[in-house]
Amino acid sequence: MILGKVLAINAGSSSLKFQLIEMPEETELAKGLVERIGIENSVFKLEYGEEEDKLTTDIPNHAKAVEVLLERLQASGVISSLDEIDGVGHRVVHGGERFSDSVLVTDEVIAEIEKVSELAPLHNPANLTGIRAFKKLLPNVPAIAVFDTAFHQSMPPESYLYSLPYEYYEQFGIRKYGFHGTSHKYVSERAADMLGEPLEKLRLITCHIGNGASVAAIKNGKSIDTTMGFTPLEGVTMGTRSGSLDPALVPYIMDKTGKDVNEVLHVLNKESGMLALSGFSSDLRDIEDRAQEGDERAELALRIFAGRIHQYIGSYASKMHGVDAIIFTAGIGENSKAVRERVLEGLEFMGVYWDPARNDVRGKETFVNYPHSPVKVMIIPTNEEVMIARDVQRLAFS
Amino acid sequence: MILGKVLAINAGSSSLKFQLIEMPEETELAKGLVERIGIENSVFKLEYGEEEDKLTTDIPNHAKAVEVLLERLQASGVISSLDEIDGVGHRVVHGGERFSDSVLVTDEVIAEIEKVSELAPLHNPANLTGIRAFKKLLPNVPAIAVFDTAFHQSMPPESYLYSLPYEYYEQFGIRKYGFHGTSHKYVSERAADMLGEPLEKLRLITCHIGNGASVAAIKNGKSIDTTMGFTPLEGVTMGTRSGSLDPALVPYIMDKTGKDVNEVLHVLNKESGMLALSGFSSDLRDIEDRAQEGDERAELALRIFAGRIHQYIGSYASKMHGVDAIIFTAGIGENSKAVRERVLEGLEFMGVYWDPARNDVRGKETFVNYPHSPVKVMIIPTNEEVMIARDVQRLAFS
Repeated sequence: MILGKVLAINAGSSSLKFQLIEMPEETELAKGLVERIGIENSVFKLEYGEEEDKLTTDIPNHAKAVEVLLERLQASGVISSLDEIDGVGHRVVHGGERFSDSVLVTDEVIAEIEKVSELAPLHNPANLTGIRAFKKLLPNVPAIAVFDTAFHQSMPPESYLYSLPYEYYEQFGIRKYGFHGTSHKYVSERAADMLGEPLEKLRLITCHIGNGASVAAIKNGKSIDTTMGFTPLEGVTMGTRSGSLDPALVPYIMDKTGKDVNEVLHVLNKESGMLALSGFSSDLRDIEDRAQEGDERAELALRIFAGRIHQYIGSYASKMHGVDAIIFTAGIGENSKAVRERVLEGLEFMGVYWDPARNDVRGKETFVNYPHSPVKVMIIPTNEEVMIARDVQRLAFS
Repeated sequence: MILGKVLAINAGSSSLKFQLIEMPEETELAKGLVERIGIENSVFKLEYGEEEDKLTTDIPNHAKAVEVLLERLQASGVISSLDEIDGVGHRVVHGGERFSDSVLVTDEVIAEIEKVSELAPLHNPANLTGIRAFKKLLPNVPAIAVFDTAFHQSMPPESYLYSLPYEYYEQFGIRKYGFHGTSHKYVSERAADMLGEPLEKLRLITCHIGNGASVAAIKNGKSIDTTMGFTPLEGVTMGTRSGSLDPALVPYIMDKTGKDVNEVLHVLNKESGMLALSGFSSDLRDIEDRAQEGDERAELALRIFAGRIHQYIGSYASKMHGVDAIIFTAGIGENSKAVRERVLEGLEFMGVYWDPARNDVRGKETFVNYPHSPVKVMIIPTNEEVMIARDVQRLAFS
C-alpha cells in the first residue's frame, strides 16, 4: 500500500468542490471550491491550515477550473509539485445497477457512467466533466469513481422493487436506487468502531438529515432499505422536496394549477418540503427560531419533518426485527438537538432510552443514549471525502 | 330508542348492494345485490335464511333497482310491508373535510356531498344515485349517510398535510383523507370489547387487508394516521394498486411509455400491485398457491405485500409510542394465515409474541397472541353494514 495525497472531487454543473487528504492518516490538508464555472466572475476558494486563498476570475470550463486548482495548490505551498498527488476520487451520483462499489475509472467505466446518465440527467454529466478534466491534466494519476447509489445496491428485490409492471424494471430500470450511500456507509462503519462490535453483527438505522435527507436500514454492514427511491425526491420531508406522497396527486395538481407534469415535478422538488410547510424558509435554523417564537406553521413544519423520520425508525426496526443503534449525521442530524429530540421521543417501547443532557451537543461524535439503553443512539459527523479517499487508497494502491 | 329494520346500502355506478338488519340485535335478515344497472340483462340477487331469489331483467336505473329490491323483499316474505323499514343507511365514499361523522340526509347534505364529489368523481355520484332513489321511494324513512373518510377526520395536521405548497391544501383540499374508515372504526370498537378495556385508553393498529388495503393508527379511539391518502392509491401494495412510490416516476413512466398522465394513473390503479408483481393474478389465493409451488415472482409479491404492512406496524407503533393490539380484518386479513405470519414475523422486539397454532384460523374473531404477549394480536371480521345500521339507529332514533 503506497501512502500519499488524494484529491476528493465533487463536480457540479457549474461548480467543483475539492478536498486534499493525506492518506492513510486521513488528514485534511486543504479544501475549497470553484463556483460559477462557465459564468462570468467565477470564484476560486482554497482553505489550508489557517490560510484562505480567494480569487475571482473567468473560468470558462471544468478543465480550466482544475488547472487553476492545481496551480493554486502549488502556489500556496500546500504541495510542492503535482507528483505529490497520488490519486483522485470523484463523486458520481448515479451508478445504476452497474456499480455496487467504487471503481477505477477507465474509458469503459466512463462510457457506462454516460449510459446511466439518463437516471440522473442533471448530475452524472456534471460529475463526468470533472472526471474528464482531471484525466486531461493528470493523465497518469489513478482516478476512482465513488457512487452515491453503490452502497444501496445490496438491497434485496423486496426493498428495491416498486409494485409496478415488472417490465418497467426490466426495460426502464425503474426501481429504488437510494442516495447518500457514501455517507450512510461511512457512519455505519464509524458506528461499529464506536460500539466496539463487528459491523457484520449490527442492525443500524442511519439518519442522514441535511437539506436533503434519507434514512437507511443497515443490517450486517449492508444497506437493506432506504427512504430515497428512484430519485432523491422520495422518502421523508426535506428542505424543498415533498418526499413521498400519493402519486394520484400529480395529475390532480396538474388539473388544478394548469401546470404540465414537469412543472409539477419542479414544485415537488424545489417549492415543497419545509419551505412550503413553514411558508418562509427551507433552512431549519430559521424554522426552529420561529417555532420557538410561537409561529404555528413553523412548529407544524418541524413536527412533520421530525415525525416522518421518527416513523421510519419504527418501520426499519420492524424490517430488521429490531435495531442495535440509531445514528444521526449531516448538517441537521449533527447539529439540531431539537430535531433529534423530536425524532427520538417516545421510542422507549423499542428500547431507546436517551439522555437530553448528552443530546445537547453540536457536530461531534458522541453517544446520546443512557448507558443502560439496549438501543444505542449516536451522533457521527459524516465525512464523504474521507470515504472517497479511502476508496482511492483501496482501489488504486492495494 | 325505537327498534326496527334497517337497510344498509352501497350503491356503485352500475350496482347496488344491500343488507337488511334487525336492530338493535344486529341480526342480518337478508342481503343481496343488483348488478348491471343501466346495462341489459341486469341481475337481482337476494339471500335470506337458506333461500336465494335470483332474477334477470332489465333495470335501467337505480330508482328501478330500489323498486325491484323493495318489491322482492315483500314478495319473498322477508318483510310484510314497507312500513317495517325504519331507516336506510348509505355508504358514501368521500365526505371531504365537511363530514367527520355520519349524518342524517337532508337536501343540504346532498348538496354538500355533491360539492365533495370532485374528490371522488367515480364514487360519490354513484352513492348519490342510491340516496336519491330511496328518497323517492321511501320519502318518509330517515336516511343516513356514512362516509368512508369520516373516521379519519380526527387525524392531526401533521398526519394529514402533505409537504406541499400550503395553498394546495387551502384552495384544492389536497390532504390525506384516508378510507375504509367504517371498517377501521368497527374493528377498533370490537377490539376494545374483546380486550375488556376502554377504547379511550388503547393504542391500536388496524390492518384492513382486502383487495384494497389500508393500515390505521388508532389512539384513544381516534384515527391519528392511515396509509391511504388523498386517494385510495397511496400506502401499501394492493391487488392492482401500486401504493406509494416516488412521485418522480410519474413523468418518467410517461416519457418512457408515451402514455399521458391519466393513462399512467390508470396503470398505477389497475395494472400494478400484486397483479404486476406476480405477473399473473391480483388474487392473493392464486399467488399463495403459486408461491408454495416455488414460483419466485409469486413469492416476491407476497414478501412485498406483507412486508409493506409489517413496516407500517413499526411506523405506527413509533407514532403512538407503542401499541397495545394489532388487528387483522377484511378478506385477506381475516383469512390468510400466511399473510398474517409474514406481517407479524420478527416483531418480538416491540413486544409482539404470537402463536402459530392460534393463527391457523380463517374468518373468525380470535386472539392470535400468546397469553403473556404485551401486545395483543387479533383477527376481527369486519362488518361495515352493522356499523351503518348502528349509525342509522344512533342518528335517526335517538
